[in-house]
Amino acid sequence: MEDYSLIGKRIPRVDGRVKVTGEAKYAADYDMPGMLWCKMVRSPHPHARILNIDTSRAEKLPGVKAVCTGKDFGGWKWGWMPKTRDEPPLAVGKVRYLAEAVAAVAAVDEDTAEEAADLVKVEYEELPGVFDPEEAMKEGAPQIHDYVDNNLSWDFHMDFGDVEKGFAEADLVNEDRFETGRVITGFLEPPAAVALWDSSGITLWAAKQSPYFVYRHLAACFKMPLNKVRIIQPFIGGGFGGTKNDSQPGDFCAVLFSKMTGRPVKFVYNMQEVLMTCRRRHNMIIHNKMGMKKDGTITAMQSKVIADGGGYTAIGPLTMYLTGCMSTLPYKLPNFKHDAYRIFTNNPISAAMRGHGITHTRFAAEIQMEMMAKELGIDPIEVRLKNAITAPHETVNKVTVNSCGLKEGLETLAKDPRWEKRSKGQPGEGPVSHGVGISGTSYLGGAMQRGHQSCGAVVRLCEDGTIDYLTGATDCGQGSDTVLVQIIAEELGLRMEDVDIKRVDTAVTPCDAGSYGSRVTVMAGEAAQKAAQDVKGQLAGVAAEKWEADPQDIVFKNQQVYVKGSPEKAMPFRKLAQIACYSGSGAVIVGKGYSQYGIGLNDFDKGLGDSGTSYSFTSHLTEVDVDIETGFVKCTDMVIAHDCGKPLNPINVEAQNQGGAIQGMGQAMYEEFAMDHGKTLNPNLADYKMPLSPDVPNIEVVDILTEDASGPYGAKEASEGSIVSAPPSIVSAIHDATGIWFKEQPVTPEKIAMALRKKKE
Amino acid sequence: MEDYSLIGKRIPRVDGRVKVTGEAKYAADYDMPGMLWCKMVRSPHPHARILNIDTSRAEKLPGVKAVCTGKDFGGWKWGWMPKTRDEPPLAVGKVRYLAEAVAAVAAVDEDTAEEAADLVKVEYEELPGVFDPEEAMKEGAPQIHDYVDNNLSWDFHMDFGDVEKGFAEADLVNEDRFETGRVITGFLEPPAAVALWDSSGITLWAAKQSPYFVYRHLAACFKMPLNKVRIIQPFIGGGFGGTKNDSQPGDFCAVLFSKMTGRPVKFVYNMQEVLMTCRRRHNMIIHNKMGMKKDGTITAMQSKVIADGGGYTAIGPLTMYLTGCMSTLPYKLPNFKHDAYRIFTNNPISAAMRGHGITHTRFAAEIQMEMMAKELGIDPIEVRLKNAITAPHETVNKVTVNSCGLKEGLETLAKDPRWEKRSKGQPGEGPVSHGVGISGTSYLGGAMQRGHQSCGAVVRLCEDGTIDYLTGATDCGQGSDTVLVQIIAEELGLRMEDVDIKRVDTAVTPCDAGSYGSRVTVMAGEAAQKAAQDVKGQLAGVAAEKWEADPQDIVFKNQQVYVKGSPEKAMPFRKLAQIACYSGSGAVIVGKGYSQYGIGLNDFDKGLGDSGTSYSFTSHLTEVDVDIETGFVKCTDMVIAHDCGKPLNPINVEAQNQGGAIQGMGQAMYEEFAMDHGKTLNPNLADYKMPLSPDVPNIEVVDILTEDASGPYGAKEASEGSIVSAPPSIVSAIHDATGIWFKEQPVTPEKIAMALRKKKE
Repeated sequence: MEDYSLIGKRIPRVDGRVKVTGEAKYAADYDMPGMLWCKMVRSPHPHARILNIDTSRAEKLPGVKAVCTGKDFGGWKWGWMPKTRDEPPLAVGKVRYLAEAVAAVAAVDEDTAEEAADLVKVEYEELPGVFDPEEAMKEGAPQIHDYVDNNLSWDFHMDFGDVEKGFAEADLVNEDRFETGRVITGFLEPPAAVALWDSSGITLWAAKQSPYFVYRHLAACFKMPLNKVRIIQPFIGGGFGGTKNDSQPGDFCAVLFSKMTGRPVKFVYNMQEVLMTCRRRHNMIIHNKMGMKKDGTITAMQSKVIADGGGYTAIGPLTMYLTGCMSTLPYKLPNFKHDAYRIFTNNPISAAMRGHGITHTRFAAEIQMEMMAKELGIDPIEVRLKNAITAPHETVNKVTVNSCGLKEGLETLAKDPRWEKRSKGQPGEGPVSHGVGISGTSYLGGAMQRGHQSCGAVVRLCEDGTIDYLTGATDCGQGSDTVLVQIIAEELGLRMEDVDIKRVDTAVTPCDAGSYGSRVTVMAGEAAQKAAQDVKGQLAGVAAEKWEADPQDIVFKNQQVYVKGSPEKAMPFRKLAQIACYSGSGAVIVGKGYSQYGIGLNDFDKGLGDSGTSYSFTSHLTEVDVDIETGFVKCTDMVIAHDCGKPLNPINVEAQNQGGAIQGMGQAMYEEFAMDHGKTLNPNLADYKMPLSPDVPNIEVVDILTEDASGPYGAKEASEGSIVSAPPSIVSAIHDATGIWFKEQPVTPEKIAMALRKKKE
Repeated sequence: MEDYSLIGKRIPRVDGRVKVTGEAKYAADYDMPGMLWCKMVRSPHPHARILNIDTSRAEKLPGVKAVCTGKDFGGWKWGWMPKTRDEPPLAVGKVRYLAEAVAAVAAVDEDTAEEAADLVKVEYEELPGVFDPEEAMKEGAPQIHDYVDNNLSWDFHMDFGDVEKGFAEADLVNEDRFETGRVITGFLEPPAAVALWDSSGITLWAAKQSPYFVYRHLAACFKMPLNKVRIIQPFIGGGFGGTKNDSQPGDFCAVLFSKMTGRPVKFVYNMQEVLMTCRRRHNMIIHNKMGMKKDGTITAMQSKVIADGGGYTAIGPLTMYLTGCMSTLPYKLPNFKHDAYRIFTNNPISAAMRGHGITHTRFAAEIQMEMMAKELGIDPIEVRLKNAITAPHETVNKVTVNSCGLKEGLETLAKDPRWEKRSKGQPGEGPVSHGVGISGTSYLGGAMQRGHQSCGAVVRLCEDGTIDYLTGATDCGQGSDTVLVQIIAEELGLRMEDVDIKRVDTAVTPCDAGSYGSRVTVMAGEAAQKAAQDVKGQLAGVAAEKWEADPQDIVFKNQQVYVKGSPEKAMPFRKLAQIACYSGSGAVIVGKGYSQYGIGLNDFDKGLGDSGTSYSFTSHLTEVDVDIETGFVKCTDMVIAHDCGKPLNPINVEAQNQGGAIQGMGQAMYEEFAMDHGKTLNPNLADYKMPLSPDVPNIEVVDILTEDASGPYGAKEASEGSIVSAPPSIVSAIHDATGIWFKEQPVTPEKIAMALRKKKE
């Protein structure tokens, strides 16, 4: 990467200063003259028929400007696919999970709105609920939706090779049941927006990860053309999939209220609403069956997944697809069968979260593989190296891998002195037992989806040689704005400060499929590079004409433009910009580009083919100290050997690997919604425990460099791999320290202490 | 024009509804939390040295957040050319006109700011002033600026052919002195803006005609790169050149105050400030000499122009250029000499106004020509037809005319029954005398300027087949947004409502040279057409591939796309958009274009070559009734036969011709600043009388169609021609009614009554 000025360099964040100083404005910070506050009226029941809604008392409260209920949306529902559009902005007819929104109020201030929400009187007829997906699948269980039988929200099946033949060839075939837990994204900024309806259409200043989703939803819900829907992105306080990657009841109600009142309308969910109602990761029960030869070779795998879908479908079909389509990586797997069932329950809605779908089944497969290797007396690294794919590779379901640094990553960990500190089957007996675990996983970059797939970029030259850069890709905290600016500046030979990235605004920034599935660097980056090259090409034409040179020979570097090999033919970039803008009629130089690597999920129903434009590989070592008395685990060290192809900004790659690993640690060790008949018992950040800074281990990130042509400058995914690799590596380390395999997340001190006590007995 | 669906049709304004309902938001309507108000402290003297400014009392007033004076701008000055940058945001050292801004205050509300402005104590040493340009030119007159001698702000000279030879060939040579009067633009919305300085740079919501001018000024003043300066355009309540086409002291002070306080800062000038300090049309004294043969042939013309420049230069050099460069149109003129002098005085600053520069000298030449024709016994239409150019034509100073409908226009008027109603040298004697006058003039379209000349456009396809259109061209009331949307919709075969034009925002809309000099339809229209064609080309590629057709054969019409001659190969535009956006990786279709017809004023100093991309021709008939007793003139009818090439929207062309004619009527008959030693005595709209609706005549606009390739669909100028043609036609009509030639505007009842009395004596 030595040829580059900015790519591959540890560049500080372009949004660092405004975030640190507090100047960055988030959706909740917006305040407008005459603005109303919107509050939701929520159901106290997880499953109930709505008999009547009496809004009269609320409407009479001074300061209340409007009240709406489900019927005000004319039966419109949304969902990821046409046939799964089952979620109304406000419940109609019945509620399907506790705290589902049934009405909303708009009032002159937040207090009045809260008071008014309490005055809306809803009569319910309680219905029997079902909260366990295995119960919900049974004949005779309460039916949550009419449009499917047996509460089967979605099912997805894969069958490649011949698993029975594979199992027959194996020396050891194990079956285990895993469960992945109920966790949520944990952003610090709750869903919030300000809506304005005027004759220019709908404008929404909204905390969204992928503004083009809510853009389409609002157009559909309110029957508006897309060019009359404008989503303006304030700074975003974390995304991680699910909630902010989708629309919220508040979005629709605020827009409707603005239409009704002619005033701007704001909503901000509180943390209780977030933790009780927002989209969370699916809890999945995974029955995994694996066949292995004595030498460790995996011969077949069969998985049955039962996912708790909650009350509506949301993006669930894609989650189910992802549980299977990536199971054939990162280990050679000639025979694979997969059956995934998403089941409606009266729990809150499950949807995407960082490591979407893949983290569940990879956890099961990874732990099971190591359990079996142990049974066969094979070292954890050996079994992985034995089975690890090498590039180029095509999986049995036609996933094509063009670069793979898994072996190099595992070998890096094997050489790490910390790997030698493991107990090797002889766990300590206390008071503190040390353990080291490992995992090797894969994730996709440039995730493919249904619908409009690509990312666009527009780059404008200002006549003083500075650059305006317009992208529809949202930086929801991951640092992508910085990387995208690096790409533009690198291509044009400019400094970071010469390129100004504009806030996303669907009315003016080019369409972008969204900031999810580790797409931004890979796909918005491809678009950025093309748009910058378009500007460069136009300027090179001007320079080439002046110098009578070949445009191909014009070099842009260090704010200079020159003819390769002719040092006398050089001028500052700024000067060339002025010549282009001021000569003759004066050019208005605009560059454009869009990503073309990704394609739609053509074989979505079969789990066949690629689900991303490229694949990252993560080898993850975790070191823990386990208190044998209390079961308390202190995770002390992690080493993440991550193949993201080429790290365009190593600080960012490091930070994303660390962030993913810590979030993965949260779900492996700490986080869990305590549920009672659909009620979230711990809807606050004191009782729903996420890792805090004292919990964070020392995390070393090692970049494993590989060559992949699909991303800009060879970049692949760097933001989700480690949330997949962390949990199995932690569980492996806890096993190393205790001799016990835990198959249900989170592995809490209680569970460890209980298991150790049982083991002793 | 029959082939078009929208071009050439009477399409209502796209901004009509929001303006009529009052929803349209103007700069003064913006209100932001924490916003401060800025007020200016203005000089009570027209010429004085500033000895001391004591801001302490103002600073102590509760609610005052900041006070600034000229020195806070570090000596920065602005102006149209580098060597004429003589105007500071706030006066430094001395004031050069009465009510010049010397300091400013920012306070929590408007009242407090006004109070604080009164508390700023400025000590002055009064200097002798000079208020008449002819006096100011004299040796020993008070010197207003140090950087020039004899108060000569700018001079401009042309000398083509041989005027002495021309005068020698003439049968009649006359010399006359004309004076054009002190008038102002008369917009209803005063200058106003809200400024915000934060880490993203400067944002200014400003009432600007050409936002890219203030964009450059703010970047230069505050030493910011252009991509950190953002001008957002609210709706604009009239422009007409001068004030809103330039920056205002308030703009700089509001930005500085926002930088000082971190808060948004607003200013709104009141009408007194507008009428006392804003840029107005130059009053010009024109000594005109013309030679004519007995048959009416003009042999030579020599003009000496003395313009009252006021205290600073502003755009004055361009005004001086325009007084001469267009004098060779619309009549054949083989010999022409021109000497123009712009003189500093201690009057308010003179600058551009609709009909910029040209209206002055054309008034003089037109009246003088008719006076001489009368002397030679030649009919007013005859003398014009005798001399009128026909296309193609190149003037003696190399102005090239590719289309000209002047003769057709004059012939149209000659056939109008109203023309027969003239007194023909036998004016009535009262009580009311009827008169009919005529004129034939020319104006430029697509005015050229210094600096970045061209206009850009970006057109984005939304996946539902609707269109986002981004232009930097401001509609300040002239209706250009409607015409630009017509162009985009026409090219793509869509309806008006399918295209959404975005508000101008320099951060995201492509650079545009400005809404002045009748550029928008011609140049922004060219850009719009190209950008739409770019989108069409991309979509045609998709359709051609699908239908195995030649992309050239794909037709876009009536919201349908089809292959020419193959009716079975057709689909709705919307469908094609979806195919393009959803197939494969999904295209992000963005079209771009910029105008290339216009070029810079390369021979600005010599008055050689074109000053516009094309030229309009206006033949103007006016009918008046003059009260012989009181001198009161009722203008009853006008017929404007205007050659704008092709009228893209005849309602707009009609409205612009009407508006220009009424504004021209204002300066010919009503409007005049009463000045006393630099003081404007009538700074209110009761005493500065503009035409009101009862004053407006019946105005018929006849489109004279010509063929010109330079503008989109053959469009030329339609917004300024009639302000040039109206005054001579009115004065000609008043002469027809009274037998008296008036050479000084405005021709008020007092002047007429006095002249009639004198004539009787």
